[in-house]
Amino acid sequence: MFMVINTSEIIKQLNWRYATKEFDTSKKLSNEQLELVFESLRLSPSSFGLQAWKFVVVSDQKLKVKLKPHAWNQSQITDASQIVVLCRLENLDKTYVKKYIEHAANTRGVHLENMKGYEQMILGGMKTKSEGEINEWMSKQVYIALGMLMANCAAVGIDACPIEGFDKKKFDEILELKTLGVTSQVVCAVGFRSNNDKYASMKKVRFDKEDIITLK
Amino acid sequence: MFMVINTSEIIKQLNWRYATKEFDTSKKLSNEQLELVFESLRLSPSSFGLQAWKFVVVSDQKLKVKLKPHAWNQSQITDASQIVVLCRLENLDKTYVKKYIEHAANTRGVHLENMKGYEQMILGGMKTKSEGEINEWMSKQVYIALGMLMANCAAVGIDACPIEGFDKKKFDEILELKTLGVTSQVVCAVGFRSNNDKYASMKKVRFDKEDIITLK
Repeated sequence: MFMVINTSEIIKQLNWRYATKEFDTSKKLSNEQLELVFESLRLSPSSFGLQAWKFVVVSDQKLKVKLKPHAWNQSQITDASQIVVLCRLENLDKTYVKKYIEHAANTRGVHLENMKGYEQMILGGMKTKSEGEINEWMSKQVYIALGMLMANCAAVGIDACPIEGFDKKKFDEILELKTLGVTSQVVCAVGFRSNNDKYASMKKVRFDKEDIITLK
Repeated sequence: MFMVINTSEIIKQLNWRYATKEFDTSKKLSNEQLELVFESLRLSPSSFGLQAWKFVVVSDQKLKVKLKPHAWNQSQITDASQIVVLCRLENLDKTYVKKYIEHAANTRGVHLENMKGYEQMILGGMKTKSEGEINEWMSKQVYIALGMLMANCAAVGIDACPIEGFDKKKFDEILELKTLGVTSQVVCAVGFRSNNDKYASMKKVRFDKEDIITLK
């Protein structure tokens, strides 16, 4: 495979990124950049490939204004180009797994019969877990998508700010997530940093390699 | 900011990546590529910037052989160039938060006194959570790092396979993670796909954009 992207470019972009506090309200993502956001989420890996998630991308300013008070009035909610609300399924059940297996069989043009073993494996794994554990597990998969999104945004120079500090119930209500069968887990604001954001030039706080990476 | 990486290159790489089942045992990551792995993990964002994690990167073949039976004998464990074991702290306590705050103050050259408010905010947030909830929250941050790692590996053409199916207790024991004060959460094998991996050419199974992305 011919590598078009250098490791040093990615590392440079990882150092360029930061949790953007102040977005430039005049700068919006282009359609091409929005496509990267969508594809980063859609193509994210998940356990068993189940994709037990949905992503709500909010561009509507009125809706952002409604959401803001339920996220500690953080300005990123209204000032970023888009707010991505990453959600897990409310309930992961047999019906969903069946739907996924059918989709997988269709995509790959294989007989449903040949996927039965895989379906049983997934259902078997689920049986050993409580509902709370399954929900936690789905939630973790959503965080993979969050990581993919932030890495890819950084790579192409899109700013982002992950936000855990928001009222999930209120977000679910305002965005009518029940109708989608999902519940919000974490938010990521995407857009472009304001020239006034003093956090942009602050030194990144990270432990040294020796402190967090152990080689064996 | 001058963009060196195109969104289309990233999307191409997202489609190129897949959960590699069979690694080429003769191909190892270069030092430059290993550096990307380290920096992807180290520079990952985490809630409050706390970095309540450590990452164990296993290259030693004997150790990989010992781990394999505790991961359903998946060949990736022994055949990949490296096994990254992503861990959270065993316990997140006041002492750790204090250490982080001191490190942040040192890094940014600010007086510790000026960081007290931030420290109190973190501790306040922790107080509202049970130990189990704090552990779950740390675990989710680890999954952000997993997502960042997989996205960045894909971008530069490094293959990867995320692995949740392993015995955490056994991995903790074999890797002596207690001495590091951490516990394993998820594994990611990194290396290069074998030409024989039939999964490499299979069509990626993903739901359509319309099914998982809602625009508002």
